Amino acid sequence: MINDIFLKACKRQPTNRTPVWMMRQAGRYLPEYRAVRAKTDFLTLCKTPELATEVTIQPVDILRVDAAIIFSDILVIPEAMGMELIVEEGKGGPRFPSPLRSKEDINKIQVPDPNEKLKFVMDALRLTRKSLSDRVPLIGFSGSPWTLAAYMVEGHGSKNFRYAKELIYNEPKLAHQLLDKLAKSVAAYLSAQIEAGAQAVQIFDTWGGILTQDAFQEFSLYYIRQIIEETKTKGAPIIVFCKDCGHSLEKIAATGCDVVGLDWSNDIGMVRKLIGSTTALQGNMDPTILYTKPERIRQEVKMILEKFGKGNGHIFNLGHGILPDIPVEHAREFINAVKEESVSFHL
Amino acid sequence: MINDIFLKACKRQPTNRTPVWMMRQAGRYLPEYRAVRAKTDFLTLCKTPELATEVTIQPVDILRVDAAIIFSDILVIPEAMGMELIVEEGKGGPRFPSPLRSKEDINKIQVPDPNEKLKFVMDALRLTRKSLSDRVPLIGFSGSPWTLAAYMVEGHGSKNFRYAKELIYNEPKLAHQLLDKLAKSVAAYLSAQIEAGAQAVQIFDTWGGILTQDAFQEFSLYYIRQIIEETKTKGAPIIVFCKDCGHSLEKIAATGCDVVGLDWSNDIGMVRKLIGSTTALQGNMDPTILYTKPERIRQEVKMILEKFGKGNGHIFNLGHGILPDIPVEHAREFINAVKEESVSFHL
Repeated sequence: MINDIFLKACKRQPTNRTPVWMMRQAGRYLPEYRAVRAKTDFLTLCKTPELATEVTIQPVDILRVDAAIIFSDILVIPEAMGMELIVEEGKGGPRFPSPLRSKEDINKIQVPDPNEKLKFVMDALRLTRKSLSDRVPLIGFSGSPWTLAAYMVEGHGSKNFRYAKELIYNEPKLAHQLLDKLAKSVAAYLSAQIEAGAQAVQIFDTWGGILTQDAFQEFSLYYIRQIIEETKTKGAPIIVFCKDCGHSLEKIAATGCDVVGLDWSNDIGMVRKLIGSTTALQGNMDPTILYTKPERIRQEVKMILEKFGKGNGHIFNLGHGILPDIPVEHAREFINAVKEESVSFHL
Repeated sequence: MINDIFLKACKRQPTNRTPVWMMRQAGRYLPEYRAVRAKTDFLTLCKTPELATEVTIQPVDILRVDAAIIFSDILVIPEAMGMELIVEEGKGGPRFPSPLRSKEDINKIQVPDPNEKLKFVMDALRLTRKSLSDRVPLIGFSGSPWTLAAYMVEGHGSKNFRYAKELIYNEPKLAHQLLDKLAKSVAAYLSAQIEAGAQAVQIFDTWGGILTQDAFQEFSLYYIRQIIEETKTKGAPIIVFCKDCGHSLEKIAATGCDVVGLDWSNDIGMVRKLIGSTTALQGNMDPTILYTKPERIRQEVKMILEKFGKGNGHIFNLGHGILPDIPVEHAREFINAVKEESVSFHL
């Protein structure tokens, strides 16, 4: 591989600088992405391997990030399990018109064979690997069982996730049945992604932070651990990113993952002291820094590099996805600043 | 005073049970509140002392909470500083049509005399104290400088607070000028509230959690500390509630406040070990628990009481405001459960 520093950093192995990529790096802030989307809707883009490959590789070509992440959506799994998924532009995000609200609803959904029902993802991974020609590694991903369940029960994104909360609080057994099905689905999905060419995988627990610490462990982290145990045998590094879960970083590190993803509420220097001897860290710049002047972006990059300190095991990233109205030049300054400023931390 | 256990708990003094109240307890979940609101708009309600008094006392009469909190809104301060504030029903929350976006905008706003520009709040406090006849203590409140600034710069609530973030990141000096004006305004406002009859005050830092730890200290907690230093001389207990700031609890406790408010992401038992020897704790039940069955509500109350453990210095509350569609009977079960189940923790 021409540039494998991302994979080395996942294993806390020495590199000559800190690798960098951005969550949602294949996205609306890129004019080239918007040009593809002008011709096709979001789900068709996810399901057309040639197009998914094209937008996956865009940030590698345009910004020279150190890893590609396959273009897809976490909600293709619930759809593969039998739920109708609707993604309409500018109408408040994706939604499930028939959310899971009863035992019957939950019984009906099926653990899918990823190579059949999600073949388009595997095809996109294979085609992207081929098109990348080993320039940089390719990351696969999935939502966590809890995050998927939250959407499937609520029907859409939400501030309070009333129905998802009612399920876990009022009917924990039924919640566990759903989460168990999801854990099996996600484990098979990630394994299939690795077999199809993903060289690392990331589990996104976007909604872990709306739970109490106890509920986070019981309804989210327990299943993430199960998935890691099953997926680990495939040999690809596993990144776990639980947003707003700074209270449970040691427990996240103890799942057996290789990398813990951090949002910007964490001080990466303190986190390194806490879990950095066993786990690599990914993150964690406030995504809104990319609205600011280039010199301010570089200053923040330097501060985070200093917080982490010298040595290996840091993958630079934002603390959440890049926002859709960020100027491309600011994203470029971010990537370049990490590449240039991090060298002295690896001497 | 007939029931002063809330004030005793603020000072970690012995009580025969745990006091309880709810953030937003004077709110839409009460039919009696909706009846008042049917006759008047939100800001008129805030500005009419007789009506504000009526809805402030409703949860004391209906649910028998252990403290009243004056009905008002955190955004009356920016209005008193010279900004136009618009609150329209069902149109995405309050907004400032002319947000602060330049040095000129920030220079224009004035530190108000609270007894002149916010006299309606002082009148409501005096009238409420009179109407309560010392049945329970009356709490005053304010937004924190950072949380007020975030609204004033953005113009409205936001997911990312792009403009507020740009201000602190690109123009920190100007941000500090604004925050300094706000800190002076809030300190005078809270002091005036105490003089008008508030027996404790709470500072709400709703948006502290969107900042990095460093920015939280520089742009939020620094000013909260200043306000506490000035307001402390008035003798009323001070509660600080910074939502999603579990990373900085020791620093919040070190501001000199009497009580630290907790959202539900914190384990109150662990927090007590951390800061409970110097500070009382307020919280911290997930507000969505109130959607669940009464027996589940009681179970959660018992669990939180057990986490805190025996002894004094706990004020029971939700981890955020009560949601507008909670059945009143569920709120009642919550209040009663705390009153009944907490006795054995005070023997």
